[in-house]
Amino acid sequence: MTATALTAVSEQKCFGGTMGVYSHASTSTGGTMRFSVFRPQGEGPFPVLTWLAGLTCTEETFMIKAGAQRFAAREGLMLVAPDTSPRGHDVPGEAESWDFGVGAGFYLDATEEPWARHWRMESYVTQELPALVEASFPADMSRQGISGHSMGGHGALTLALRHKERWRSVSAFAPISAPTQCPWGEKAFSGYLGQDRSRWAEHDACELLRSRGPLPCEILVDQGTADQFLERELKPGLLEEAAREVGQRLTLRRQEGYDHSYWFIQTFIEHHIAHHAQAMRG
Amino acid sequence: MTATALTAVSEQKCFGGTMGVYSHASTSTGGTMRFSVFRPQGEGPFPVLTWLAGLTCTEETFMIKAGAQRFAAREGLMLVAPDTSPRGHDVPGEAESWDFGVGAGFYLDATEEPWARHWRMESYVTQELPALVEASFPADMSRQGISGHSMGGHGALTLALRHKERWRSVSAFAPISAPTQCPWGEKAFSGYLGQDRSRWAEHDACELLRSRGPLPCEILVDQGTADQFLERELKPGLLEEAAREVGQRLTLRRQEGYDHSYWFIQTFIEHHIAHHAQAMRG
Repeated sequence: MTATALTAVSEQKCFGGTMGVYSHASTSTGGTMRFSVFRPQGEGPFPVLTWLAGLTCTEETFMIKAGAQRFAAREGLMLVAPDTSPRGHDVPGEAESWDFGVGAGFYLDATEEPWARHWRMESYVTQELPALVEASFPADMSRQGISGHSMGGHGALTLALRHKERWRSVSAFAPISAPTQCPWGEKAFSGYLGQDRSRWAEHDACELLRSRGPLPCEILVDQGTADQFLERELKPGLLEEAAREVGQRLTLRRQEGYDHSYWFIQTFIEHHIAHHAQAMRG
Repeated sequence: MTATALTAVSEQKCFGGTMGVYSHASTSTGGTMRFSVFRPQGEGPFPVLTWLAGLTCTEETFMIKAGAQRFAAREGLMLVAPDTSPRGHDVPGEAESWDFGVGAGFYLDATEEPWARHWRMESYVTQELPALVEASFPADMSRQGISGHSMGGHGALTLALRHKERWRSVSAFAPISAPTQCPWGEKAFSGYLGQDRSRWAEHDACELLRSRGPLPCEILVDQGTADQFLERELKPGLLEEAAREVGQRLTLRRQEGYDHSYWFIQTFIEHHIAHHAQAMRG
């Protein structure tokens, strides 16, 4: 893979660095994918924090709404944000729900039809995208962190546990902690992975902590107490329980009065960037 | 006017304070208007910074894209952002251009038909909105500042000069400095104010500096050197020239490589919030 495989959709100066959106033909998903990159000022190589966004988001949501560039610039950290699913494949049913199909890839490789051909976000995020970033930007791929929000928080936790060698630091905002035990996860997993629940466990952060944990790094999680999805979908208590069982270091902060939005993320993003930057220096 | 005249569209916790979007029946524009407010944590009363957005923006653009709440929260400053025009009136031609009509009120009261009935953004921003904010929020209206971007930078400068008693501090990002001498301004002023150019001067920051300046406060302006509208529409050199002529204190910073976007604004918003906060304390 070479740098010329990328098309720059836009590149704009931001905090002394460059805010860019790129598109490319993806071998993982068999179509055009977009991702965004904030690259700090200077030569690099820079450690890389990959952000996985939540349901309905795109590669731009985090970059526009989180206010992370200010701190990434300060810490000398590159930010990479992929899209939340393949798009433009006209798979039957892909646009019928906001929580399944387009905008809802759940960061796994689907095994069921009609999704198995294109919905391969785990391969995309853990293999193709890092290779492309390494080839195209001054990135130090020996220092990578992963974070995300909601469905992307699920993605950050599960991919960190499934690909331990790749990530040095992990955090999440309001993650779907136990997708095998909530409506969003049940819908996605039955659609993408089929009815055999034993295969679902391989993509559930709590189950993965038990089967593959603990991670050597501390996991930082922020969760708003006024989050409208807290009880039904997110269930952070289950993550705490699994972490306790396997001895995973976990700082789970319940932030009083905050909801599920990027206003909440904006408020606490500084701490997350610092968390990752510290691990990159370590 | 009472607080019950307002409908809260949304209120969400952000940096310990409240990020809200509100709608109300506007007497100035004869229809429903929306505006957004960031209110810091605490009892107040808080000084108020009004932000005027640019062409095509809404009451949400600045709040979502500028990252200003972090610093407003730190300084104890309330942020108020109105929409950029009336909407929903089905005035013939209102949606034909992105730089005229809807999303392009230019912060003046139109005198020409079919705009004169609804397009009254100067009355709205300088009278109705402050009264509504005073009645509904813990605002200290003796300490107000105004800022904005592009068309909103034009608005901030011209409204500051036309209503000197109201604002204690003024700043702008990439303002349309001399709308009587650029295509955006000529199109808007001929449409809203008619062909008599002598009336245009009353809404041109450079002309107003000469006729009503200087302001007692220092004006802070940031302008990107890679701004795609710099030469044709913005013309900061004319503002510098007028300021020099009348002895207006002006800090105009040309920021190397930055364009017209909110990435530019996000990079320098901290300085603008500090500029206003300092004037409020003074």
